[in-house]
Amino acid sequence: MRFGLVCGTCGKQKPFDLQGMKCGCGGTLSVEYDLERVGRTLTKESLQSRVTSMWRYEELLPVTSMAHIVTLGEGWTPLIRLYPLERQLPLRKLWVKREEQNPTGSFKARGFSAAISVAREHGVRKVAVNSNGNAASALAAYAGYAGMEAYVFLPKDCPGLIAAECSLYGAFTCLVDGFIHDAGRIIQDGGREQGWHHVGTLKEPGRAEGKKTMGLELAEQLGWKLPSVIVYPTGGGSGLIGMWNAFMQLKRLGLLMGDLPRMVSVQEQGCQPVIDNMERGGPFVPITSGVSSNPTGMRVPEPPDGELIVRVLRESGGTAVAVSPEEIRCAQAEMGKSGISSSPEGAAAWAGFLRLLDRNWLRPSDEVVLFNTSHAMKYTPSQPDRLPVVKTYEEWKRRRA
Amino acid sequence: MRFGLVCGTCGKQKPFDLQGMKCGCGGTLSVEYDLERVGRTLTKESLQSRVTSMWRYEELLPVTSMAHIVTLGEGWTPLIRLYPLERQLPLRKLWVKREEQNPTGSFKARGFSAAISVAREHGVRKVAVNSNGNAASALAAYAGYAGMEAYVFLPKDCPGLIAAECSLYGAFTCLVDGFIHDAGRIIQDGGREQGWHHVGTLKEPGRAEGKKTMGLELAEQLGWKLPSVIVYPTGGGSGLIGMWNAFMQLKRLGLLMGDLPRMVSVQEQGCQPVIDNMERGGPFVPITSGVSSNPTGMRVPEPPDGELIVRVLRESGGTAVAVSPEEIRCAQAEMGKSGISSSPEGAAAWAGFLRLLDRNWLRPSDEVVLFNTSHAMKYTPSQPDRLPVVKTYEEWKRRRA
Ligand SMILES: Cc1ncc(COP(=O)(O)O)c(C=O)c1O
Ligand SMILES: Cc1ncc(COP(=O)(O)O)c(C=O)c1O
Ligand SMILES: [Zn+2]
Ligand SMILES: [Zn+2]
Repeated sequence: MRFGLVCGTCGKQKPFDLQGMKCGCGGTLSVEYDLERVGRTLTKESLQSRVTSMWRYEELLPVTSMAHIVTLGEGWTPLIRLYPLERQLPLRKLWVKREEQNPTGSFKARGFSAAISVAREHGVRKVAVNSNGNAASALAAYAGYAGMEAYVFLPKDCPGLIAAECSLYGAFTCLVDGFIHDAGRIIQDGGREQGWHHVGTLKEPGRAEGKKTMGLELAEQLGWKLPSVIVYPTGGGSGLIGMWNAFMQLKRLGLLMGDLPRMVSVQEQGCQPVIDNMERGGPFVPITSGVSSNPTGMRVPEPPDGELIVRVLRESGGTAVAVSPEEIRCAQAEMGKSGISSSPEGAAAWAGFLRLLDRNWLRPSDEVVLFNTSHAMKYTPSQPDRLPVVKTYEEWKRRRA
Repeated sequence: MRFGLVCGTCGKQKPFDLQGMKCGCGGTLSVEYDLERVGRTLTKESLQSRVTSMWRYEELLPVTSMAHIVTLGEGWTPLIRLYPLERQLPLRKLWVKREEQNPTGSFKARGFSAAISVAREHGVRKVAVNSNGNAASALAAYAGYAGMEAYVFLPKDCPGLIAAECSLYGAFTCLVDGFIHDAGRIIQDGGREQGWHHVGTLKEPGRAEGKKTMGLELAEQLGWKLPSVIVYPTGGGSGLIGMWNAFMQLKRLGLLMGDLPRMVSVQEQGCQPVIDNMERGGPFVPITSGVSSNPTGMRVPEPPDGELIVRVLRESGGTAVAVSPEEIRCAQAEMGKSGISSSPEGAAAWAGFLRLLDRNWLRPSDEVVLFNTSHAMKYTPSQPDRLPVVKTYEEWKRRRA
């Protein structure tokens, strides 16, 4: 096999498996590749004539046959130099990676293109996800194309337009009175009975691998030299973790020149477990009460592997920054005036970046990439719709019946 | 000069000019290139290592210096094969060109990347457009990045989210009690006094050229062999006209193999001047009353050059189809279930395609490309916003003061 699983904590190896990403030691498993074999075909030269989607990196994705891939045009998103803003700031270069130009309008398309391809290869027919919104609509679209049944569970205060999007793609869409982990519990509880394949963050091997392609692309688009700083709006952390894995793999493949970037996580005040744990140190402590931030992809009080997020930030020499709702609003307006439609998460990256400038964490020689992970318009308030609101799996089953 | 203007009706040539696209004979001017010179650098081989945006075709765009281009990541959009649907239909191949993955969520980004680049090269500081929505938000974004002032005028029933998008990009956004041509009249009336560069359909040379890149890309993505049929939702017609120009240029450059496609225009019942005029023949007659279709990009009762649209359809051996609002709704749901977010216009292309199948206009050997020109979510109803509603330029000026 070209790939298997490995534990990020104790290093134990396991054969590739569709479910069960926790090691006995408590660590998270991730996909490991036979890099010697990969390196034989994945070369800078071979890439020049490949498809311009994330599947150009097929050797680093956990699918055996390309006949199984489910592709809707994800990845190879534009990396735009923000010249007008750059000129006013004390740094060398500034880019925005326009992840909102993916199918379904967010970077989540990458994870689900991979996850649904993997699931299809393994004969899955029903998939379910808990999500703050964008993951749900991405699952819905890819499952729709693949002819699978999709079940999505969203906090009831999630943006109305994203819920509508899930329905448009034909998913069974359900709102949940609680947070994303409460929604996850519904899937956990009902999974076996319903025959659901759980595609939640770090529940299966596809999503983190798909997101990894953001890192692969960034390297290739910048001529195999990474920027000095990457600013990423963080929730469950799989974007950050995936990219870091990508950099490790590229390094071992001998494809990278220069240093690795300092990774920066941004979260909104009112739900900032990553920032709190970076400051505190010790074992990762989730947020169990008092969440007051807005419903965005960054609002994840109990990340599935917070430890791993903090480890990546530390290892890279990075940091974590919390920003206020007001800073996010201003940042969104500022990015808008520069022609970029940014979701609150993408705007948070910009706001976090401004904070780093303020506290002199950035250097004049820095080259910075901001990730704009979704479209502004997906969050523009729309009419409340009439989807069911439930609290438990039982309740959901009852209302469906 | 690498490029100048030429009249599509009488063939008269003129030097390149930023404004005034009407020939003395009444025909529309378009940009003409020194194709011998273009062919020296624009080759299949040279394209392989170029930027993956529409600017890969720089020789066929009317900008002198690449330093002036305003690019936000437009073009080189995915062309997705609809395998699941194709299998159930009597034709050879079916694709959808995902134009909604452009910046600002629609194909209009291409036109405005070109138009604003051209305008910047000529020192323009203030731009204005009348639009059914997507053109306005695209203008707003590109002008925003370029640091120009943008003024956009939209029918008051245009989707609320698109109006909000224009404001997000910092445009002076104004609703108009009337249709797109009424909005155009405001710009016409106020242009000189305000120093506006009018970027309306066929008012300047950039937009049609930018849209042309859809045709260039399609050819390249399909290995320089065009499909047998292209289905396009038509309003002002510049998408269709631009693509046809692209095919002519590629043919003269010797880059195309095989036949040209049959071009199909789709419009919504209740405003179908293109269909009516295709059936009637003779000089083009606009719709002057009784418009009852929904506010989409297809609702253009008085296209700036309807004659030219009909000529392209005829020359290509194509046709024009009207579809009902109900057919559009069903088509949107059907495309959604296949994982594609389609605006009413993109859905109309699908609905028109189904009509062509029904009336046996398509052949089993046909290879069909549908254009999905915008995102579904831009049209999802949102709260009414409090933008000014005016009827004339005078009124607008008054309210602004
Ligand atoms: C738009 C957006 N940005 C960022 C995030 C956070 O991503 P991750 O879970 O990979 O940390 C999400 C997750 O929902 C999101 O939807
Ligand atoms: C989404 C969409 N599709 C199609 C059209 C029609 O395009 P054209 O004016 O090039 O005919 C428009 C124009 O507004 C549009 O916004
Ligand atoms: Zn372990
Ligand atoms: Zn003429």
